[in-house]
Amino acid sequence: MSELKGACIFGQSGGPTSVINASAFGVFDAALKSPSITRVLGAEHGIKGVLNDRLFDIDKEDPAELKLLKYTPSSALGSCRYKMADPDVDDTDYKRILEIFKKYDVRYFFYNGGNDSMDTCNKISKYMQKVGYDCRVMGVPKTIDNDLFGTDHCPGYASAAKYIATSCMEVYQDARVYDTGMICIIEIMGRHAGWLAGASALATAYGAGPDLVYLPETDFDMDKFLVDVERIYKEKGNCMVAVSEGIHYADGTFVSEAKTSATDGFGHAQLGGLAATLAQACKEKTGAKVRGIELSLLQRCGAHLASETDIEEAYMSGKAAVENAVNGISDKMVGFERGIRNGKYACKTKLLNLTDVANTEKKVPREWINAEGNGVEKAFIDYALPLIQGEPDLPKQDSLPRFAKLKKILAK
Amino acid sequence: MSELKGACIFGQSGGPTSVINASAFGVFDAALKSPSITRVLGAEHGIKGVLNDRLFDIDKEDPAELKLLKYTPSSALGSCRYKMADPDVDDTDYKRILEIFKKYDVRYFFYNGGNDSMDTCNKISKYMQKVGYDCRVMGVPKTIDNDLFGTDHCPGYASAAKYIATSCMEVYQDARVYDTGMICIIEIMGRHAGWLAGASALATAYGAGPDLVYLPETDFDMDKFLVDVERIYKEKGNCMVAVSEGIHYADGTFVSEAKTSATDGFGHAQLGGLAATLAQACKEKTGAKVRGIELSLLQRCGAHLASETDIEEAYMSGKAAVENAVNGISDKMVGFERGIRNGKYACKTKLLNLTDVANTEKKVPREWINAEGNGVEKAFIDYALPLIQGEPDLPKQDSLPRFAKLKKILAK
Repeated sequence: MSELKGACIFGQSGGPTSVINASAFGVFDAALKSPSITRVLGAEHGIKGVLNDRLFDIDKEDPAELKLLKYTPSSALGSCRYKMADPDVDDTDYKRILEIFKKYDVRYFFYNGGNDSMDTCNKISKYMQKVGYDCRVMGVPKTIDNDLFGTDHCPGYASAAKYIATSCMEVYQDARVYDTGMICIIEIMGRHAGWLAGASALATAYGAGPDLVYLPETDFDMDKFLVDVERIYKEKGNCMVAVSEGIHYADGTFVSEAKTSATDGFGHAQLGGLAATLAQACKEKTGAKVRGIELSLLQRCGAHLASETDIEEAYMSGKAAVENAVNGISDKMVGFERGIRNGKYACKTKLLNLTDVANTEKKVPREWINAEGNGVEKAFIDYALPLIQGEPDLPKQDSLPRFAKLKKILAK
Repeated sequence: MSELKGACIFGQSGGPTSVINASAFGVFDAALKSPSITRVLGAEHGIKGVLNDRLFDIDKEDPAELKLLKYTPSSALGSCRYKMADPDVDDTDYKRILEIFKKYDVRYFFYNGGNDSMDTCNKISKYMQKVGYDCRVMGVPKTIDNDLFGTDHCPGYASAAKYIATSCMEVYQDARVYDTGMICIIEIMGRHAGWLAGASALATAYGAGPDLVYLPETDFDMDKFLVDVERIYKEKGNCMVAVSEGIHYADGTFVSEAKTSATDGFGHAQLGGLAATLAQACKEKTGAKVRGIELSLLQRCGAHLASETDIEEAYMSGKAAVENAVNGISDKMVGFERGIRNGKYACKTKLLNLTDVANTEKKVPREWINAEGNGVEKAFIDYALPLIQGEPDLPKQDSLPRFAKLKKILAK
């Protein structure tokens, strides 16, 4: 394919992760070095920044600060949850995006996010093809939920998994110090896929984790749950449980549903308060001391516990998006393929069709969950363990994190 | 004073910390080396282990595992919250303790805990004096609450403070990614003293922390709080608030009080759910998106974020207790004195009367809190910052913590 010269726009979308900015640095680093890319722009709040003509000149940032993005959690440019209309029904947004692309001579568009964001990316890609505007569109994967189709795993997952496993190991020590015993419920993110909740079992594999783990891939049965908890509490004097926020009854109702009716921009119910609800149910059943702990935002922004493997792969996925696009690829998302090199875990990038990725969720295979639906099998541990390896050398100032400080100079 | 030969008992009491086991290792390390101490015993669940004759032979532990205690959070021997009776009213427990001391020829008793535990330690010390049993009794300080009288600070505080500051810096990044804004409430431990909540201001001092900080040293005014939050939310589009679990109205009622009526063994109300309550109040006032985050047990067991300064000082306090006792000192608690060495923060041990320490709480000085009662002054930052310095080289196995595994062989 012939060389395409022009500006690029990079945007971050959906819930942030500990390493989404590592992907941003991968994109910026490769784009700033590429002779084909004439200008590097970062969109404020994802696609909203394009629509509102709020684009930052990344070329004007201090290179040392850009490098710190690798270790800075959350979306440095700002994120959004914005559902794009079907362009056949309402093409207002698409026309506006085309206008902005033309204004800045944008020939490369990189969008970093999960399922919903890949839907946005796909729609933009197809629209540009339809109107014949020459622009290469690439998705960069991101989600702690690890539920993107076609990729072995997603950047962001491993660092959250490591945070969850480590925190569970620590809470395990704390939640059994008294001779009176306790039932402790840990609530973990994950609406429809249990990859994160399953990661708590890494703690168990290393001798200090939950006795019971519940994923949204199986139906939750409150009576059976309480029987299981009571049995373990009576046997051991303590019981630790990890639950995905998205656990639901057989009829599909979220266990947490009664707690809140708020919804986000995509119509997803905002879940929460589940740990307290289950803890209360356990207290009523057993009379035990209980504690519910919600890992909340901490699990997705805990960059101080990031996996070095995750950081490097997140960087690699951003870089690969740029390099592939410059080489003529478009309409794809970068994915990961797991392999073995010198007897060890290795990971390389591959390319997936945006159409296939958009809005498809990858769940934990049923055979990786135990028959009882209250734990995970060794296959899950074998899958997750290599991803959390490695401790990055985190930039610090007075023993506190030194995060990137961007100037965010608006492009004219 | 003449040499006193005999066994020692060490016990851990009250809520655990990230570094209480570092103090245990300080005691064990010094006691195992001391020619005066003939046997090293660890009490299971603090004083309850003495009462129940559940003592572990520390001499039989693997030295490499004992060393790992320095980096293992929570109370490895088990803790308790057990209120000792006034011996003039009921001396049953004291007679039993004396019986056990005689059984094992215990001449050294080291007790590691906070205010209530120092009360226990003090009572035992005075009883042994009264009955003329020659035993040296020493308190080893411990509390994330940092509220022990007479010492510059307490082991355990700095690691929790560092966890809180780092987590606030990370959540700060996460809680402002969307253009829709959010009010985020972080609930921090601390029933009557605001040392921990104040530590969140370290994050603010480094550019990414709460806008408002509420300590229990001042009265909380819900109306003023909501006005402050609304003002900041309107100005900045986001607002982050840190609150101590123990904030209370002018009449002394805890703001969280309506949430639970459970009490612990000392009659303290078990607080919780405050973040959610305040978040809801902010939502009603402003209509903003809100999130309440309770740092819960995570903040006191987060050894992966421990301060190296704290670990070394915790170790030092345990060691000093043994060394002083062997040298003839008794009826004291080890405390810390802050100084300057080569222009830098330095800390040495000092000795405090157990009588003075027992049940006395040290609060944050009013002048370290701002006039409005919604933040801390620079004096607080200057106090806390040196304590959180240094990253220990944490023992890991497959990138997860490798905690000490004790055999816990019961003494005969």
